[in-house]
Amino acid sequence: MIGGLASGLRSRFPILDQAHVIRTMAHRVQELLVLVVLAIFPKAIFGKLNCSSKAGDAPVAVAEGSNGYCLSWRLAVEANNIRAWRTVPPQCQRHVESYMTGGQYDRDLNLIADQVMAYADGIAVSDDGMDAWVLDIDDTCISNMFYYKGKRYGCDPFDATGFKAWAVQGECPAISTVLQLFQKLVEDGFKVILLTGRDQETLGLATFNNLLNQGFLGYERMIMRTPAYKGQSAIIFKSDIRRQLVEEGYRIWGNIGDQWSDLQGQFVGNRTFKIPNPMYFVP
Amino acid sequence: MIGGLASGLRSRFPILDQAHVIRTMAHRVQELLVLVVLAIFPKAIFGKLNCSSKAGDAPVAVAEGSNGYCLSWRLAVEANNIRAWRTVPPQCQRHVESYMTGGQYDRDLNLIADQVMAYADGIAVSDDGMDAWVLDIDDTCISNMFYYKGKRYGCDPFDATGFKAWAVQGECPAISTVLQLFQKLVEDGFKVILLTGRDQETLGLATFNNLLNQGFLGYERMIMRTPAYKGQSAIIFKSDIRRQLVEEGYRIWGNIGDQWSDLQGQFVGNRTFKIPNPMYFVP
Repeated sequence: MIGGLASGLRSRFPILDQAHVIRTMAHRVQELLVLVVLAIFPKAIFGKLNCSSKAGDAPVAVAEGSNGYCLSWRLAVEANNIRAWRTVPPQCQRHVESYMTGGQYDRDLNLIADQVMAYADGIAVSDDGMDAWVLDIDDTCISNMFYYKGKRYGCDPFDATGFKAWAVQGECPAISTVLQLFQKLVEDGFKVILLTGRDQETLGLATFNNLLNQGFLGYERMIMRTPAYKGQSAIIFKSDIRRQLVEEGYRIWGNIGDQWSDLQGQFVGNRTFKIPNPMYFVP
Repeated sequence: MIGGLASGLRSRFPILDQAHVIRTMAHRVQELLVLVVLAIFPKAIFGKLNCSSKAGDAPVAVAEGSNGYCLSWRLAVEANNIRAWRTVPPQCQRHVESYMTGGQYDRDLNLIADQVMAYADGIAVSDDGMDAWVLDIDDTCISNMFYYKGKRYGCDPFDATGFKAWAVQGECPAISTVLQLFQKLVEDGFKVILLTGRDQETLGLATFNNLLNQGFLGYERMIMRTPAYKGQSAIIFKSDIRRQLVEEGYRIWGNIGDQWSDLQGQFVGNRTFKIPNPMYFVP
């Protein structure tokens, strides 16, 4: 570019002006260099980035501002350190959305599934048909994420009518990692018992069909909330159901759910597995 | 720089060679521009950064490669989904180091402390002196992070001799967030009982002094592992101690520990709080 400019100058200006031309060119090149450096430097040096540049290094970025808080909040939810929360903190809506849809939720599910399978592989399944696993349904087997997207990923308070209208359609997609896990447990000879707080009277048929259309075939039982358990906390309700299962002779080897209320109380099972869910809390 | 070069050239070369000089200068400037751009471009454009630049946005970086795996691994540890792990996965050493030292661990502690205090504030402490909290010691009250730094943040297997040599010095620093929590619980009138799997015979005095020199004053009791409990898992040992406390009449309102084995078993307390610890697992 600059070579072409030089030869063009030579033919157009008298020799006596070439010194002036050299100075002018020099100034323009100086300006150009400054512009190039300023255009690139801010992003490399002055920006608020604090990132490592190699995959596999320390966390790719130091969490800043509300993202650091949201990481703390979400971890506390998963570790059972926060209870009875009604909505996702408003500053964490995007964090929750990114977590659920950006790949990390899927990675987390895969690791948990590996843990479940490694554990299940170590169990000698008896011929008596009493080796059982208990699985929750909502956001464990099937996903309500599409519904919660319309509820700002949990920033909006729980809307019982809205949720029922969604669930009764029976179109919640399978959480594929858990579907594969379910299928493996059934193949291995475990009795898989699906235990849900969903109301049997209003959602019984829709839930039955939803599980069917998503491939959850071969479970031993699907147990829903009957009128006798109306208004009880999930911990109380599910503990009582599991007590009955144990009294029938089932050995609950594993208990998988997205809520700590699926995994607490009595007869929780030999091991529990918490599926991540930062969108809502069920007491 | 270039202006000075141009006037220097004018005085040193005959007019007939100035065209050649212009071309030479042009080439040198082109080379200089290319060098400047190449020096800066890789870091700004070709590096494996994937970072947002505004605080408060969606997670500041999409986790890549082993960092995504390590986030899953650490979350699974905190959610009690992985058990009996002997070492931190080798590819996660820097992740754990960054987590522990880069600020997120401190943020996580602060949020947990807020939860503890909000819960404790809602308890009407009785005059009978039987409202209690149980706290673990290692990596709950006092930190062994300096020791674990020398053990690659948990990538090295547990070294009983090495740990004892460290602990017997009695110089573990307080985890200041938990110290403040401890002090508040004592001020509120709770009986704070420190319960540790540390061996009383070898580490009794060192632990007593360490707590003292770090400001943990006013606890009701410090209970350590006596010979009768030698070789038992922490779940069994601590459950038995808590059983005895409950039989004495204590109401265990809260139970704080960095290991799930502090928080499981029998008489776990009305609420449990898991302090993050991705460095080691105590069965």
